[in-house]
Amino acid sequence: MSATFKHNFGAGPCILPQPVLQRAAEAVKSWDPVGLSILEISHRSPEFESVVKETEMLVRELLNVPDHYSVLFLQGGASMQFCMVPMNFLQGRKKSAAYLDAGYFGAKAIKEAQLFGKVNVIGSTKDSGYPRLPEGYAIPEDAAYFHYTSNNTIEGTQMWANVKSPVPVICDMSSDIFSREIDVSKFDLIYAGAQKNTGPAGLTIVIAKNSFIDSVKHPVSSMLDYRIYRDNGSMYNTPPVFAIYAAMLNLQWLKVKGGVKVIAKENLAKAQLLYDEIDRNPLFKGKAEKEHRSLMNVTFQMENPADEADFLKYAAQFGMVGIKGYRTVGGFRASLYNALPFESVKALVDCMQAYTESIIPHGSFHPTY
Amino acid sequence: MSATFKHNFGAGPCILPQPVLQRAAEAVKSWDPVGLSILEISHRSPEFESVVKETEMLVRELLNVPDHYSVLFLQGGASMQFCMVPMNFLQGRKKSAAYLDAGYFGAKAIKEAQLFGKVNVIGSTKDSGYPRLPEGYAIPEDAAYFHYTSNNTIEGTQMWANVKSPVPVICDMSSDIFSREIDVSKFDLIYAGAQKNTGPAGLTIVIAKNSFIDSVKHPVSSMLDYRIYRDNGSMYNTPPVFAIYAAMLNLQWLKVKGGVKVIAKENLAKAQLLYDEIDRNPLFKGKAEKEHRSLMNVTFQMENPADEADFLKYAAQFGMVGIKGYRTVGGFRASLYNALPFESVKALVDCMQAYTESIIPHGSFHPTY
Repeated sequence: MSATFKHNFGAGPCILPQPVLQRAAEAVKSWDPVGLSILEISHRSPEFESVVKETEMLVRELLNVPDHYSVLFLQGGASMQFCMVPMNFLQGRKKSAAYLDAGYFGAKAIKEAQLFGKVNVIGSTKDSGYPRLPEGYAIPEDAAYFHYTSNNTIEGTQMWANVKSPVPVICDMSSDIFSREIDVSKFDLIYAGAQKNTGPAGLTIVIAKNSFIDSVKHPVSSMLDYRIYRDNGSMYNTPPVFAIYAAMLNLQWLKVKGGVKVIAKENLAKAQLLYDEIDRNPLFKGKAEKEHRSLMNVTFQMENPADEADFLKYAAQFGMVGIKGYRTVGGFRASLYNALPFESVKALVDCMQAYTESIIPHGSFHPTY
Repeated sequence: MSATFKHNFGAGPCILPQPVLQRAAEAVKSWDPVGLSILEISHRSPEFESVVKETEMLVRELLNVPDHYSVLFLQGGASMQFCMVPMNFLQGRKKSAAYLDAGYFGAKAIKEAQLFGKVNVIGSTKDSGYPRLPEGYAIPEDAAYFHYTSNNTIEGTQMWANVKSPVPVICDMSSDIFSREIDVSKFDLIYAGAQKNTGPAGLTIVIAKNSFIDSVKHPVSSMLDYRIYRDNGSMYNTPPVFAIYAAMLNLQWLKVKGGVKVIAKENLAKAQLLYDEIDRNPLFKGKAEKEHRSLMNVTFQMENPADEADFLKYAAQFGMVGIKGYRTVGGFRASLYNALPFESVKALVDCMQAYTESIIPHGSFHPTY
């Protein structure tokens, strides 16, 4: 492996497929349908309206979105949704909202919701540092909605089971949307910052049940009102043109690959390879508890934390990028998003093994090597 | 002139300089400092932090921004500012906000502000269809702030004089920021969607006096709170990485050109050339009243509106793009933003003259031809 080839394990903005980057770059120079750069075309041009339509159709097809759901394109990332969700669905209601506190971003969502009404944190693993998902909680039947994060990007935990909820379910899927099959009908609103499996930063995808967003009765600012996006085809104002175009290219790539069913198998194989190494290598150990491990963000550390800086330096020589853990968490995090090739995971595992061999004499711990 | 060369008069997203597009395209393929695409790098990388810093410095340098002002990068365009401004500076105060109603977007800002408090429309030219700016109004001394739009993109009017105001001044400069020198110290908050003279769509620039944004006393959602952007260097959450990078390239281009003082002269020359033709050509007439004409968006029509479709078709053959007037306004609009070359305006004028010659026998109206 060349020392200059980069294996991009970044947590987001993250690796995108090479053909997507090539086509996006071409369009920045000149976009065929118009003969101008994609950066300088009118968002009201029929050519760009086709892009928005196709991107919506790809989301619908890839995730099997029912007809009574809208697919919306917004800005501001998941963080803006932490505000929009309670502003629309909690403010002015006599109910409280039920939130799961299962990670850094879920906690941020809770903090924002508290500005708009009463928040009921029905399950939390905060005290132990979020190594696992909350369990054994009950969703109150009188809650305005239930909010959770499907994949905790920083902590490396992922919630696979669909929730049985007596109230509307809202899910932050920023870091695992398009990585696996989901049953959209189990949710009332799904949101996701684009910069993982969807496309570049600067775009937010929302998938919302129409009857749910129509349940809002109080006045909401236009740019914070889901209905405005729906009723204007996400073009109430100038949308993030390039980010939508690049997302379209990326979802086209995913479709050609076979869609989420196919990519889910690849994602599983990548994660298994890495977790297996973490579990058997005596220098490393996982951070998240096994039964809640994420397939997207693999968090791990060294048995001896003092070795971590040394391993980071060692791995950098082999082109490993973005494996440092989140600043408040430490250790390592390897993000295995859709576009990351199996070969990159293999290269990381090779690197972990070679490092270990260099420290522990050959044969002394891995008899199968 | 080749029939395929496009002269891009689009109102926004608008033409960007060719060198900016070339460099942006290269960075989408691979960005030198990191060796990855600009679309797949971490926004927390020191290399991207340098981009944000340099973009901020360019804004400060080009507009001579005083030290006690912050330069912020947001998302959601001017439309999101229509909401954020009253949410921060009107909501919960016992004052009303003074707004000028001088165009389509100013009216939208008024509508959003009304959700948060009392709005006092102190001047309006709505009844006559916004052909000119309101005049003779007084800004109440007890207003929370005074809001106006410096350049009305759709109607083609522009407000050049600085306002003498007894209260904080907030200005939507979306379509003329970086086109001319401004005295930032006369404003308390300036905002601008990027997709005219700043860069591609998906970015909003805010220049705010620190003491003004610190005057907010009620709790505001993080993503709608200017202080959060300031206190986190516009990186509270993932910013629109590519849009900021492209804006940096564009502002670098402007700096190399000589800055806003130089570009302002070019913009004036371009506008004069086109307005002169509109005024002397018997087939055309201006829409905005002369003393309030915009140098950025030149709105005009034909003496005989039935000819307009024919001229549009004629002009398209010569590569004129984006000259159709806004859908609710009709006629034509030629936007002459920074990146539009003088030659393109010359080409449009040539086209208007040639069209006229083809209809009115040579020599019968333009003795100097």
